[in-house]
Amino acid sequence: MRVKVNGETHELWTLWREGSEVKMIDQRLLPHRFMILTLYSHQETAEAIRDMVVRGAGAIGVAGGYGVAQAALEAQGKNQKTFKAYVSEAADTLRATRPTAVNLFHAIDKCEKAASKGSVPERVAATCAEADRLAQEDLEASKKMGEYGNALIKDGFRVLTHCNAGALAFIDNGSALAPIRVAHRSGKHIFVYADETRPRSQGAKLTAWELQQEGIPYALIVDNAAGHYMRLGEVDFVVVGADRIAANGDTANKIGTYEKAVLAKENGIPFYVAAPRMTFDLKCPNGDGIEIEERSPDEVNWVWGADENGKYSKVRISADGTVAKNPSFDVTPAKYITGFITDVGVLRPPYRRSIREALHTRKGSVG
Amino acid sequence: MRVKVNGETHELWTLWREGSEVKMIDQRLLPHRFMILTLYSHQETAEAIRDMVVRGAGAIGVAGGYGVAQAALEAQGKNQKTFKAYVSEAADTLRATRPTAVNLFHAIDKCEKAASKGSVPERVAATCAEADRLAQEDLEASKKMGEYGNALIKDGFRVLTHCNAGALAFIDNGSALAPIRVAHRSGKHIFVYADETRPRSQGAKLTAWELQQEGIPYALIVDNAAGHYMRLGEVDFVVVGADRIAANGDTANKIGTYEKAVLAKENGIPFYVAAPRMTFDLKCPNGDGIEIEERSPDEVNWVWGADENGKYSKVRISADGTVAKNPSFDVTPAKYITGFITDVGVLRPPYRRSIREALHTRKGSVG
Repeated sequence: MRVKVNGETHELWTLWREGSEVKMIDQRLLPHRFMILTLYSHQETAEAIRDMVVRGAGAIGVAGGYGVAQAALEAQGKNQKTFKAYVSEAADTLRATRPTAVNLFHAIDKCEKAASKGSVPERVAATCAEADRLAQEDLEASKKMGEYGNALIKDGFRVLTHCNAGALAFIDNGSALAPIRVAHRSGKHIFVYADETRPRSQGAKLTAWELQQEGIPYALIVDNAAGHYMRLGEVDFVVVGADRIAANGDTANKIGTYEKAVLAKENGIPFYVAAPRMTFDLKCPNGDGIEIEERSPDEVNWVWGADENGKYSKVRISADGTVAKNPSFDVTPAKYITGFITDVGVLRPPYRRSIREALHTRKGSVG
Repeated sequence: MRVKVNGETHELWTLWREGSEVKMIDQRLLPHRFMILTLYSHQETAEAIRDMVVRGAGAIGVAGGYGVAQAALEAQGKNQKTFKAYVSEAADTLRATRPTAVNLFHAIDKCEKAASKGSVPERVAATCAEADRLAQEDLEASKKMGEYGNALIKDGFRVLTHCNAGALAFIDNGSALAPIRVAHRSGKHIFVYADETRPRSQGAKLTAWELQQEGIPYALIVDNAAGHYMRLGEVDFVVVGADRIAANGDTANKIGTYEKAVLAKENGIPFYVAAPRMTFDLKCPNGDGIEIEERSPDEVNWVWGADENGKYSKVRISADGTVAKNPSFDVTPAKYITGFITDVGVLRPPYRRSIREALHTRKGSVG
């Protein structure tokens, strides 16, 4: 992604590996401060995942893989038995950071497996290679989603997105923001409406920031205004990410996605979900099986940001003792979704078939 | 409305007159502090309207009328000519406080007219009587909306509302919250979902506070969660207020109202607009003629509330220089509205006829 630091433009990944060091953009400080954190050990990487220095399914998975690679490098002078025990303990430490992140377990499992064959030096090399391959795979998936999605975006389109399915949630480019980036870089004149995405304001904090860094014309809006612009005919295309997609296409994503999908349909606007194949879950037949996480009411009652001196701070918007409910995700039934932009192409209804076919194609690996 | 102060429950109006003094709940401090302000002169009342100590169409109108009554009392020892000039100047001062508040002009005009006939003592008495009558009329309208609306609410209903169309926007009871209050007080078991209503969070700051004071079971939710609960079948009834209703029923109200109306229709949930007849504007044929106020992007980029020490404060949720758009209202086409709860009954489609008929009934005064 493009990032301007002290007036200079850099091309950066969300996180990367330099030998035994892992570097990552500290997302806790965005958009108020830009800082790259260096993590010198697998313990520090685990801590960074737990503290949400890095977030987003793709990025967390890669961070977990890098953590196992760090452990392998840390144990490279040990004998085979000690090496194995050390890596296994490190993997457990990394697994315990974010208990519900499927990508994380997936990446850690793969790297641990790579660390289990041959001599210690061979194991170290294989683990590092596997961690790097997972990063490359994530990168490739975003690139493909960008290309397939870009083909759907016409010059002049005004695109609406919800939450942050951007470069910061993956290694680079993102899912929903990948087609937007490719369209912009290819010279199309596009404009993006970024929903702020209460309660955690990822649209305001991350998506608006990514768009600004990239020089893509945009406006941040409150979630309430999305429908208004759709009704006025000022939105041509909606694209969002996904947390989990059932076998029939029902999609769990950030709270509010369902609202925007219904409004898009009501106003005849195409509504696309961009997600790599690993987001599809064939074991889940439909949206009814997706449990919705209820998070702390504090996220509704308090808003976090920077105060007038730029200090990280929070304000309470409601009275003490206010009762609040905070469902973190919602389910958008497949009938509201025009198509899925994946790393192997755009999937169309009937989804039960197109999703199954996509997951069985040769390229890439799924599940 | 019911307000608990230091453990004691009081029945209060949003504002009232005690001789030459006007008293009002200071809405700038809600919900973090509860304070009643005394305004000793028409100048102080004008200042309070300008500073948004009081807000909401009904409440502002009554405050304007009270201000003219204060001016008449201040000039009661003067001769007829000086009295007239004094009251006229006071009326202009009061008019200049909130340039777009139609109710305000309406109330000031009526009170100024009452101040224009007979001897000075007669004029003073007539002005005070007219100001009190306007307050009574507002009160009566809310009471009627409460009764007509209550008839639509069944025991066990879960009701969703947006923004604050509560007691604080009128003299008492409110428009959208009036039926909710009557239903609760009559012993029906109801539950209210209060949308926080970004960007100004009136749902969090005022509606949740009113419901809490009244002891009505409720939950504050982010605007994004309204559709989620509708889809799950957890909302039986939606009721909102209105800023302006066109002759065909198209309704301008707080941004986000349109979204909730579309979602209600999609999920087969009745969607009602509660408003006194003065909110209907026959001169406006449909929603296309309603101009949407674009307010400062600061309302999107910053969030106001109380910090951890209870001090009024604000935090910036986006990067410096973030581009934001902030339409303050939206228009909900009449086809999404199940009915209008007014002070003369519930209006049903076809609205062009039912609205015209309602505005020509004897009771009350319109326009």
